[in-house]
Amino acid sequence: MNESERQTAEGILLTDEYQLTMAQLYYRMGMHEKPAQFDHFFRNYPDYGTHKAGYCVNAGLEWLLNWMDTAHFRDEDVEFLRSQTGRTGRPVFAGDFLAWLRQNGNFDGLTVWAIPEGRVVHPNVPLTVVQGPLAMAQILETALLNKLNYQTLIATKAARIRESGRGQLLMEFGLRRAQDRGGNAGTRAALIGGADFSSNVGISHVLGYPPKGTHAHSMVQAFIALGEGELEAFRAYAGVYPDDCLLLVDTINTLESGVPNAIKVFQELRQKGHEPVGIRLDSGDLAYLSIQAARMLDAAGFPDTSIVLSSNLDELVIWQIITQIADEAPRYGMDADHVIRRLVYGVGTRLITSRGNSALGGVYKLVALHDEGQWIPALKISETAAKTPNPGQKRVWRLYDRREKATADLITLEDEAPGQMERMILRHPTEHTKFRVLRQGDLTAVEPLLVEVVRDGRPVYQLPSIEEIRQRRVADVERLDPGVRRLLTPHIYHVSLSQQLWDLKQQLIESFQAA
Amino acid sequence: MNESERQTAEGILLTDEYQLTMAQLYYRMGMHEKPAQFDHFFRNYPDYGTHKAGYCVNAGLEWLLNWMDTAHFRDEDVEFLRSQTGRTGRPVFAGDFLAWLRQNGNFDGLTVWAIPEGRVVHPNVPLTVVQGPLAMAQILETALLNKLNYQTLIATKAARIRESGRGQLLMEFGLRRAQDRGGNAGTRAALIGGADFSSNVGISHVLGYPPKGTHAHSMVQAFIALGEGELEAFRAYAGVYPDDCLLLVDTINTLESGVPNAIKVFQELRQKGHEPVGIRLDSGDLAYLSIQAARMLDAAGFPDTSIVLSSNLDELVIWQIITQIADEAPRYGMDADHVIRRLVYGVGTRLITSRGNSALGGVYKLVALHDEGQWIPALKISETAAKTPNPGQKRVWRLYDRREKATADLITLEDEAPGQMERMILRHPTEHTKFRVLRQGDLTAVEPLLVEVVRDGRPVYQLPSIEEIRQRRVADVERLDPGVRRLLTPHIYHVSLSQQLWDLKQQLIESFQAA
Repeated sequence: MNESERQTAEGILLTDEYQLTMAQLYYRMGMHEKPAQFDHFFRNYPDYGTHKAGYCVNAGLEWLLNWMDTAHFRDEDVEFLRSQTGRTGRPVFAGDFLAWLRQNGNFDGLTVWAIPEGRVVHPNVPLTVVQGPLAMAQILETALLNKLNYQTLIATKAARIRESGRGQLLMEFGLRRAQDRGGNAGTRAALIGGADFSSNVGISHVLGYPPKGTHAHSMVQAFIALGEGELEAFRAYAGVYPDDCLLLVDTINTLESGVPNAIKVFQELRQKGHEPVGIRLDSGDLAYLSIQAARMLDAAGFPDTSIVLSSNLDELVIWQIITQIADEAPRYGMDADHVIRRLVYGVGTRLITSRGNSALGGVYKLVALHDEGQWIPALKISETAAKTPNPGQKRVWRLYDRREKATADLITLEDEAPGQMERMILRHPTEHTKFRVLRQGDLTAVEPLLVEVVRDGRPVYQLPSIEEIRQRRVADVERLDPGVRRLLTPHIYHVSLSQQLWDLKQQLIESFQAA
Repeated sequence: MNESERQTAEGILLTDEYQLTMAQLYYRMGMHEKPAQFDHFFRNYPDYGTHKAGYCVNAGLEWLLNWMDTAHFRDEDVEFLRSQTGRTGRPVFAGDFLAWLRQNGNFDGLTVWAIPEGRVVHPNVPLTVVQGPLAMAQILETALLNKLNYQTLIATKAARIRESGRGQLLMEFGLRRAQDRGGNAGTRAALIGGADFSSNVGISHVLGYPPKGTHAHSMVQAFIALGEGELEAFRAYAGVYPDDCLLLVDTINTLESGVPNAIKVFQELRQKGHEPVGIRLDSGDLAYLSIQAARMLDAAGFPDTSIVLSSNLDELVIWQIITQIADEAPRYGMDADHVIRRLVYGVGTRLITSRGNSALGGVYKLVALHDEGQWIPALKISETAAKTPNPGQKRVWRLYDRREKATADLITLEDEAPGQMERMILRHPTEHTKFRVLRQGDLTAVEPLLVEVVRDGRPVYQLPSIEEIRQRRVADVERLDPGVRRLLTPHIYHVSLSQQLWDLKQQLIESFQAA
């Protein structure tokens, strides 16, 4: 792709063809500028096969808003559409529609509410709500899902990996296995969800984080090929980076060559007045090798050096490594905590691709149309009650219990104010026999989650920095019940409907089925 | 990200930090311009958990070459690196190195051989070979893997889905679940591997394929919200697209509402002189619904309309659908083949994210350094023989047996010519007891696979069109043994070393272990 092709492929035409054919139909029917509301939400937490998330971390909004800000139908885009022909060779798109698109084909008419990035989010809760002219709100669908699904998926995986690593430093190393330049979005999401740093240079710089990294096996191999050895390679590295010396010790043999050579070089560094950073282990039994390497480093007088682990890590592997160290370290006379607290995790492939579940199933559904002065709820009756979206205009509230833990997300109609209700009924979203009654006295806070971020195309929300987003994530995760945070079989967080919303939904389903 | 930030994040700094710290070390040691050779290969076919690939389809080269052509260290990049500080606050990168990087930090000195896109490829075979100054060949690693791993992964998945769909039309629908703009690379790879079209508008246009799509549930819902019904929505659609009328029939009830309404509209279309295209099923038991919809369409006089299937399809789901139709159609008096041959598959999430295995583990390994007038093989001795790369300069040949099927890929030293050998020994790459003897008479062709694509930074290879790449894939897949093409437990294709390469590898391992 050259630069002009890139602009074509990444601008407003980053969409599915059917958004455009539908937009033309709306235009032809005179429906294209009718106000519409679409809700974006996901239906299920990522399920990694052997384990499953109990919460997600919302991410991607800033990049979506940036894209919406510049994406519009340029002359080139309209000319391409003009050239498109159907089966019989006749143009797919008519001149009047294309003229409208050239003039109005941008997102200036849309208003957007969203749950901010970094917040913990749950299924069936509207994460993003878009209102505006039907045609352009429809065209937005593909890019919105493209930009929000992936970052939320990766932020969620990162939060899980951070959880399993017990707060030790976490590095994102995945660019080489990422999806072309999509990997940059992945790095951003990893930072939001739990990574402290990334090896990815360019995007780290753009986001204001120093990229991290030391050396690969190839450096040691190059020295060996030139007739020198691992020790000379380590010495050379220490010479260039005396205050940032972190050595990869598994090119030849970790315990017989790598660690002893690293210790030799660390001693030389210390004699010159520098303290080493640590070592990296990239193969073998990482738990066993961590214990043995820690023992050797301790004995040599380097008890504070880090041990960076990499090689196919994910939340379960890290959990297993820590469990094994806790069991095995005492056998070698080592304090397990002392080993665990010096670990740093470098996580690549399995973070940037969310191994086990590589897509979040976020959807974007028409929930209301404005006609003859009022909003009319739209509903798609599917086979399963679980897939029937909640109709119309809504609000979302997070309820905190007396422990100040989040106990439920409550979806209400627009004019409900659960913070002022003495008693509220929380209905299960689909099962009519399940409900729960809460009183105001049971709660310490009732927090609205959706924030207006764009009004009629103008930003009305100060985008937070990544650091602020990270702090929000930390705060939200801390306010989850520990059962919800579990890596395996998490406790199911309650997402409930208010009685009024529940009644509206039932009434609509009935009238729809009667029709 | 604004435009300037995008350039920073997607240019030469689309790399891992350690490539740069290593490059500076090479510079400091005077090694940075020594000619080096890196091999790119993968070690294992994608394993989707319940099933596994028996071959991969190579993809991504053109986009890598385009990136290499423009990526270089700009002033802004160098200034960022100059600002980077280590633990003690001192700069990580020194002025002389940065000056060298500004002057020489591009890929003009590299020579690249590659197996062309669209070709069937196998583990441990060098797919891409890079020679040139050590520092820049090293810096290329991350971007090369980023651009080749993902496209090869997706082209491979697409080939499997095509295989399971028995050659019926295949559409790629995955952009909304793709990884930000990485999805465009996925669409390209899907087209290479087996998709006929994509819904992704921009990249389809850039690649010269008409994007495909019709309408979503939201269109029908909008009509219902405005007091009309599915029939009116279908009529409106047929009015706008009389010659390209494909209707989504599951918004209300597929067999009771969607298909009957579609048939009504098809009849009206025909009266006006237009032939309908077909229907799309997006939920429910797609096999059963296909049979019933086909029966209703047949009875109404539309036996040639397509039935597009979508909703979480992948190679196993499609296989199951076809199997079920074959079993079940006769019970309803339908010819199974007649149903199966009208199916079209729309595959989204599970194609664009390669469900079950979302990353190809391609690696890029230093295999030789040029010093004192000769190439010295480089070797990394790992714990497992399987992970020990094949050293030095090599060639790759595909051997075709008397059936004109590919029977093995043979990796040889540079000066070997298996096409001229009466008898050749094919060694298993790691197990020394396993080998196979072939005579020239057993073979119908010996084909070299690697092509020189870039010589000293200049392109020396005419990049093929996507259509040519697709034809190459079709031809290569046809020349595979049916056992290798199986979706489950495929027969293992032989990748062998020549006796000379095997001997060199053993000799190096021994000398390395003795050292």
